[in-house]
Amino acid sequence: MHFNPCLNAIKTYQAGRPIEEVVEKYGIKPQEVIKLASNENPYGCSKLVLEALQKKLSFINLYPDDSMSALKALLSQKFHISPENLIIGAGSDQILEFCVRAKCNEKSKVLMAGITFAMYEIYAKQVGAQVLKTTSHEHDLEEFLDLYAAHKPEIIFLCTPNNPLGECLDAKAVEEFLENIDKECLVILDGAYQEYASYKDPKKALDPKLFERFGNVILLRTFSKAYGLGGMRMGYGIAEKSLISQLYKMRPPFNVGTLSLEAACAALGDEVFVRECIAKNFTEMQKYKDFADAHGIEYLDSWSNFIVFFCEGKRLNSSALAEAFMQKGIIIRDLASYGMNAVRITIGTEEQNLKVFSFLQAFLS
Amino acid sequence: MHFNPCLNAIKTYQAGRPIEEVVEKYGIKPQEVIKLASNENPYGCSKLVLEALQKKLSFINLYPDDSMSALKALLSQKFHISPENLIIGAGSDQILEFCVRAKCNEKSKVLMAGITFAMYEIYAKQVGAQVLKTTSHEHDLEEFLDLYAAHKPEIIFLCTPNNPLGECLDAKAVEEFLENIDKECLVILDGAYQEYASYKDPKKALDPKLFERFGNVILLRTFSKAYGLGGMRMGYGIAEKSLISQLYKMRPPFNVGTLSLEAACAALGDEVFVRECIAKNFTEMQKYKDFADAHGIEYLDSWSNFIVFFCEGKRLNSSALAEAFMQKGIIIRDLASYGMNAVRITIGTEEQNLKVFSFLQAFLS
Repeated sequence: MHFNPCLNAIKTYQAGRPIEEVVEKYGIKPQEVIKLASNENPYGCSKLVLEALQKKLSFINLYPDDSMSALKALLSQKFHISPENLIIGAGSDQILEFCVRAKCNEKSKVLMAGITFAMYEIYAKQVGAQVLKTTSHEHDLEEFLDLYAAHKPEIIFLCTPNNPLGECLDAKAVEEFLENIDKECLVILDGAYQEYASYKDPKKALDPKLFERFGNVILLRTFSKAYGLGGMRMGYGIAEKSLISQLYKMRPPFNVGTLSLEAACAALGDEVFVRECIAKNFTEMQKYKDFADAHGIEYLDSWSNFIVFFCEGKRLNSSALAEAFMQKGIIIRDLASYGMNAVRITIGTEEQNLKVFSFLQAFLS
Repeated sequence: MHFNPCLNAIKTYQAGRPIEEVVEKYGIKPQEVIKLASNENPYGCSKLVLEALQKKLSFINLYPDDSMSALKALLSQKFHISPENLIIGAGSDQILEFCVRAKCNEKSKVLMAGITFAMYEIYAKQVGAQVLKTTSHEHDLEEFLDLYAAHKPEIIFLCTPNNPLGECLDAKAVEEFLENIDKECLVILDGAYQEYASYKDPKKALDPKLFERFGNVILLRTFSKAYGLGGMRMGYGIAEKSLISQLYKMRPPFNVGTLSLEAACAALGDEVFVRECIAKNFTEMQKYKDFADAHGIEYLDSWSNFIVFFCEGKRLNSSALAEAFMQKGIIIRDLASYGMNAVRITIGTEEQNLKVFSFLQAFLS
């Protein structure tokens, strides 16, 4: 059977490996597996979320409120915006997909950093769009501007902080960049890790009301990281009303579930939990940097909840290292699929991180 | 900002109205609202599901197992197929979307019944495909064959039983139809209500292994209806391996949540619950037919968990009737958006249905 020709160019996304795989492959008990491959919140989620879900369990036969008015009201209040500036997705991922499908086709171009979130490219290829990347791995806004001027892409992706590298643009630099972009070009600011970046350095905090100045910008945020709801698939986009209404045309009905909506609403009621998790994240991240310094491992400074360790300097192969970790029940992310000889490790709890250090020390000696 | 031109033709899907809207608009207590607009299972879900979810709540910070191997194993066992014949979606809706996006573009045509599930048309229009419909409202396979021969569409949708009308093709008629369709044309058999139809009449039961004879066929099933998991967004498709692997290219990672996977697995362990719900459904549906006969209301016989009452013969307006119901806290589905002066009512519990009859009787007199 024939399919759209663009499907030939699509590689399937390689997700962080699940606990179930380690259990099956190495016979390790599920509760002993340490999962540091997908940048989830290692402290779980707020107790308020669990309480809210308990109460909602008996309603799962019913479709969710597709207007999502309760969640939109809370987010509107938080950011001092109108509910009409919001679109909710099954993860901010889904909003990326809406954007690409609404703006692009096989004649379009999209622009992104040399190494950035893999789904930007996959979504673009799903509609046959041409993918342009900066030669720089990290975000180099000068190079972005050059490529923008030369190619006039339909979409520019800025991942800030950048997954999987961890670097983060200053908000001011982003705003200056936006001044140079035509209003026909959609700029997607992927802020999945913004809570971490803005805690570490307020200069990184993107203004949620950027759309008031830049109608061609959408800011994406998620409940999957700092809010501890990775398994619930909840994210959102903030943009100008007319942009949101076009994206809504790509939204399937009931795109987020009854419990997911409930969880997100409850999570917004416990910002203390979120701040505590982020504080612990950076305390623990310092230990990773100290460990790397002590062992001569090159790494990238990070404004998120993960850190990249390079393998080259230690004459290691990242895939072999990740596999060795996995045999010990620790899942980390091999970056070989991003063309890098490096691993990305999610900052875990104190106990989890000690195990990482202990294993890595043994492995290196 | 410019968007893909096909967006101009897209109308947003009008979902069944949520309980929250009735509460807000008419000041009715949530627990007193009766929701019979979206064909959910009025008996909730299996207790096994609730127990399984209780145990899984503390893992919602973690992304789901994206291989979905546990659920695929259970479904493979149930249908005597390989896990590679399965794709899991956020509702079977999402698999419809994968199919359309994989096969169609602005040069494509799709074919469907005159009145059928509204999302077929919306997904087709999202990629700019041309929508062909039979003049017959219900599925008339002769007319399908004529239009197929004349237009050679990329996709044919058969909704069996058909939502929102309730009629259902015989499995044998579907198989004979498939014999006449070229293998380049994807035939989507939407079996969202198959559990109901095959209980009422085994002749309606589509063979899950149809793909062994017809590589161009995908059968869709859902947990949203008989299994009582509408709020969890879980459905699946069964097809030939090579077709599944193409559809996988359109699947975003983590497209179903951690609790949704858990709920589906648990639900498959309690087929007794499902059968009991379906038995009650048809006992209660008989009361709707008796009521309609007694009051001279025209209706369509149904192989699902809903029934269509026509308004014309009673000189009623379906929108006004639905609104009057809503003021009393009963949500039913106005079919005006399908171009019909009729309402679709989900068969509720005995208590809920008595309230429907009582209100309708008062309204008619």
